[in-house]
Amino acid sequence: MTSLAYVNGMVLPLAEAQVSVLDRGFLFADGIYEVAAVLEGRLVDSAAHLARLERSCNEIGLSLPLPLDAIEAVQRDLVARNALAEGLVYLQVTRGADTGRDFLSSPGLGPTLVLFTTAKRIVASPAARLGISIATVPDLRWARRDIKSVALLAQVLAKRESQAAGCDDAWMVDSEGYVTEGASATAFILTKDNVLVTRPNSQAVLPGCTGAAVAALAVETGATIERRAFTVAELLAAREAFHTSASTFVMPVVRVDGQIIGDGTPGPVATRLRELYVDFARKTAV
Amino acid sequence: MTSLAYVNGMVLPLAEAQVSVLDRGFLFADGIYEVAAVLEGRLVDSAAHLARLERSCNEIGLSLPLPLDAIEAVQRDLVARNALAEGLVYLQVTRGADTGRDFLSSPGLGPTLVLFTTAKRIVASPAARLGISIATVPDLRWARRDIKSVALLAQVLAKRESQAAGCDDAWMVDSEGYVTEGASATAFILTKDNVLVTRPNSQAVLPGCTGAAVAALAVETGATIERRAFTVAELLAAREAFHTSASTFVMPVVRVDGQIIGDGTPGPVATRLRELYVDFARKTAV
Repeated sequence: MTSLAYVNGMVLPLAEAQVSVLDRGFLFADGIYEVAAVLEGRLVDSAAHLARLERSCNEIGLSLPLPLDAIEAVQRDLVARNALAEGLVYLQVTRGADTGRDFLSSPGLGPTLVLFTTAKRIVASPAARLGISIATVPDLRWARRDIKSVALLAQVLAKRESQAAGCDDAWMVDSEGYVTEGASATAFILTKDNVLVTRPNSQAVLPGCTGAAVAALAVETGATIERRAFTVAELLAAREAFHTSASTFVMPVVRVDGQIIGDGTPGPVATRLRELYVDFARKTAV
Repeated sequence: MTSLAYVNGMVLPLAEAQVSVLDRGFLFADGIYEVAAVLEGRLVDSAAHLARLERSCNEIGLSLPLPLDAIEAVQRDLVARNALAEGLVYLQVTRGADTGRDFLSSPGLGPTLVLFTTAKRIVASPAARLGISIATVPDLRWARRDIKSVALLAQVLAKRESQAAGCDDAWMVDSEGYVTEGASATAFILTKDNVLVTRPNSQAVLPGCTGAAVAALAVETGATIERRAFTVAELLAAREAFHTSASTFVMPVVRVDGQIIGDGTPGPVATRLRELYVDFARKTAV
């Protein structure tokens, strides 16, 4: 079946979906994105993603192309047209395609809205059964990581560095030795004292939708939660580690920079949180 | 006359020039760009811009889409097709359009190459006769500003902030109070001791092609050159200030954060350097 995409009100095959070379998303990374999971054809944690979309757009002075409920309707429509049972809906808003290239956009320029979907087995993920390996890399990103912008080159380079190191993914470390977050995920450790540690929201990290939901579910595992930065040394000494994202839910981390975490298999807290999140996702999807 | 663009070997009207929504330039800002000035239909300081293009691509592990001499041939051909006498050639290379969205690109993915031109009066610029006003803004950018990537959202926000402050352009200031550079230009001051000060090349700033040529011409003005960072206080106390870029050559700065620099008109050294650079540009254009 041909995968369909949405571009500014039109639905067309993804392979034919295009934007102008003058689109500010292409020229300036002047845009915002969101990725929402789909389970059983429904959107997971949709309100949280839409709220973050609105916040990111506000932070860069970008008007929403449609009201949030209309954006959700476009997402649901595209999921239905693609008969997507499980996977991801990608959504990107840019400041639009001008008549030329200027850092300052023309007054009245309309935004670009692009969506497409990807089929993916998120719940029955082989990687989640085995756990993944992580390389720690320097966090090269800008000062406003709370904005979910498409200026993702630092994250691309982080993932390339982790791949070159033979690892599955990257966690980023600030200049003081503290983990900020994953290259596309929120980072958690479980200490030997059964405390779940993850970084508080600030301009240093993206406010994770999945991470926030997982943190709220943690009470059901008996772990307490502590919102603070943790060092790479604490990570290496942790009982468990995992990261969270819309595209992976809860992903156990079993190896960091070649060193085994815990016993080298997904720990009971990460495994339980993954089950709890899948339940939450199924029950609240729209 | 319809402006023509180049996209991956095809020449077509700029208004119809498109890239896939899956292009990594659009999704990840995973691309590099250059802007070269055109005078009398010829490329200004071309070898320097091509060398920087190659360096930027190398730094992010991106293969050049064509050898440098072939890229220059494409630039010259597009200038001729557009009968461009004076203006700019914009060039962007991205890691290409994959079959889906993943931070890691597929092996063997071919790059995207896009070019277009803009007519602009650079030499007889009204702004250069009067000088421009600058707002200083925090430098929010990532740690690898020496790479000329299209991840330009911080620069867009800097320009928007300067516009909101009623200024013509922005200079960016690091967390220690030192000017890094303009939002799209290299920053210079002339001290009361007749010393031209500009920041040395490092990962904190883009190595400016025009700035390097201007610095080499400075000896003809009698000024000495000092490569070091300068503070906003030094800027406000300067005899002259200006910035350099391919699209503005040497642009006098006569007002910073509402405060007049020197006597509030373009200074003799900036004015002389502009003349010298125009001569250099005309003589060496290819």
